[in-house]
Amino acid sequence: MPEAASVQATVGDSEFDRDTAVTRREPGVYDVDLSAGWTIISAVNGGYLLAVLGRALADTLPHADPFTVSAYYLTASQPGPAVIRTDVVRAGRTLSTGQASLFQYDEEGRETERIRVLASYGDLGSLPDDVRTTAKPPAMPPIEQCFGPQDAPAPVPGSSAIADRLFLKLDPSTLGWALGAPSGNGEMRAWFGLADGRDPDPLSLLLAVDALPPTAFELGISGWVPTVELTVHVRCRPAPGPLRVSIATRNLAGGFLEEDAEVWDSADRLVAQSRQLARARLAG
Amino acid sequence: MPEAASVQATVGDSEFDRDTAVTRREPGVYDVDLSAGWTIISAVNGGYLLAVLGRALADTLPHADPFTVSAYYLTASQPGPAVIRTDVVRAGRTLSTGQASLFQYDEEGRETERIRVLASYGDLGSLPDDVRTTAKPPAMPPIEQCFGPQDAPAPVPGSSAIADRLFLKLDPSTLGWALGAPSGNGEMRAWFGLADGRDPDPLSLLLAVDALPPTAFELGISGWVPTVELTVHVRCRPAPGPLRVSIATRNLAGGFLEEDAEVWDSADRLVAQSRQLARARLAG
Repeated sequence: MPEAASVQATVGDSEFDRDTAVTRREPGVYDVDLSAGWTIISAVNGGYLLAVLGRALADTLPHADPFTVSAYYLTASQPGPAVIRTDVVRAGRTLSTGQASLFQYDEEGRETERIRVLASYGDLGSLPDDVRTTAKPPAMPPIEQCFGPQDAPAPVPGSSAIADRLFLKLDPSTLGWALGAPSGNGEMRAWFGLADGRDPDPLSLLLAVDALPPTAFELGISGWVPTVELTVHVRCRPAPGPLRVSIATRNLAGGFLEEDAEVWDSADRLVAQSRQLARARLAG
Repeated sequence: MPEAASVQATVGDSEFDRDTAVTRREPGVYDVDLSAGWTIISAVNGGYLLAVLGRALADTLPHADPFTVSAYYLTASQPGPAVIRTDVVRAGRTLSTGQASLFQYDEEGRETERIRVLASYGDLGSLPDDVRTTAKPPAMPPIEQCFGPQDAPAPVPGSSAIADRLFLKLDPSTLGWALGAPSGNGEMRAWFGLADGRDPDPLSLLLAVDALPPTAFELGISGWVPTVELTVHVRCRPAPGPLRVSIATRNLAGGFLEEDAEVWDSADRLVAQSRQLARARLAG
């Protein structure tokens, strides 16, 4: 999919897999090195962090696939070492529920909690094929008519290290903010993949739901939009090939806004839905 | 609002307040008696349970109003005694995050976890008045043209004790299921209040998002639709008067469906949004 990758990376052998790897120190305790490669300005991307926690939970729980993951972002993560502590809340036949927390160290060496997560895992491969849906894939121009950070004459505001890890092509109709003319619509749509060509899997969907520029940019808000809470539902194992991610904000009020994301795969299936509550830091 | 209530109950002195009351046994540990008055068939309503947990967290945390609450439903709660254990995850200036679990006892007297919750609380009264929204209240007929369980010639399938606690008037265009002719649309809309006339507050919004008949009924699925995960965002303190609740399911696939709820107050403000992932028990 990406134009530049000479050798296509595979699930299990890619930048994303290496940078989300967790090492089991003892049962339920994992060491991880948060990569500086997934930062936006200096902040570690929330979707990347979710995938790291998702890896630890997949190791702890008897089921491998995230079905629903709810993350509360407590303090800002930094690139570097971190510890993840997991617990099995309930191991069921078709679904297991777990909890995980990611910690880093403050100046005095004390553990500081960054994120706490509840999640239920299952086996996406075991689900029946029935689908009744009124949801439709987002109407988007073909990839060739969309634009990524690499297409900008100067660095796009808000882009950073993560831009080199992603294959991100934004629908021009949601790119007004980059030209100084936000539409006011609160929508963001993009073709999404990993820059090294690794195909999507349930774990990378946790990244996909939080990897586009904030919808707040299209509402004319240019500041930082920190996530308070994000829940993602993985509905289907994605087919190989590029994903389409569509995010919408309908209600900005009292300094908070929701971001609703849908992820569609190359087979036109709705593979993930997410919603986050974020803070809008208005000017001043 | 309700036709029958001769004396209007108030926030703090109503069925809902009495039945969600928690008693602090020691710091962070609360006793509660789950009321049989909020059951559907034999199951305790998930929104009522969320409000009970919300009361305990409001006591534990330094902030009083739920901003975002994520609940994982582990095992089926029963009317009767329960224990809630809470923890402060992080106490911040504008938002505090907590965790809570509700336990009951099995036949051998062992604690069994029913629900685990993560939540962030704040002060809705302190939020600025700015609103930028493209969301619109649901188009619904006036209350007089909507129908509740009390209007049915015979008990409506799925109604039960909770029907006596609620003022629920369903939009007739989402009532096909009750007449044996589900629309296939996956939508459910209703005017919502408490039967004793108590006005809505942030806590009762936790009930409102999960108190309508399942959207699955309108998809032609008549069985039990247990919630796996439910997250609610309270966006605004509701004005007095009836609420409008609009719930939509767009995607039923692999035996799971999402239910997206919006709650609007009498001042036409979007006061809560929720999404749940539920299991559809298809026939057979």
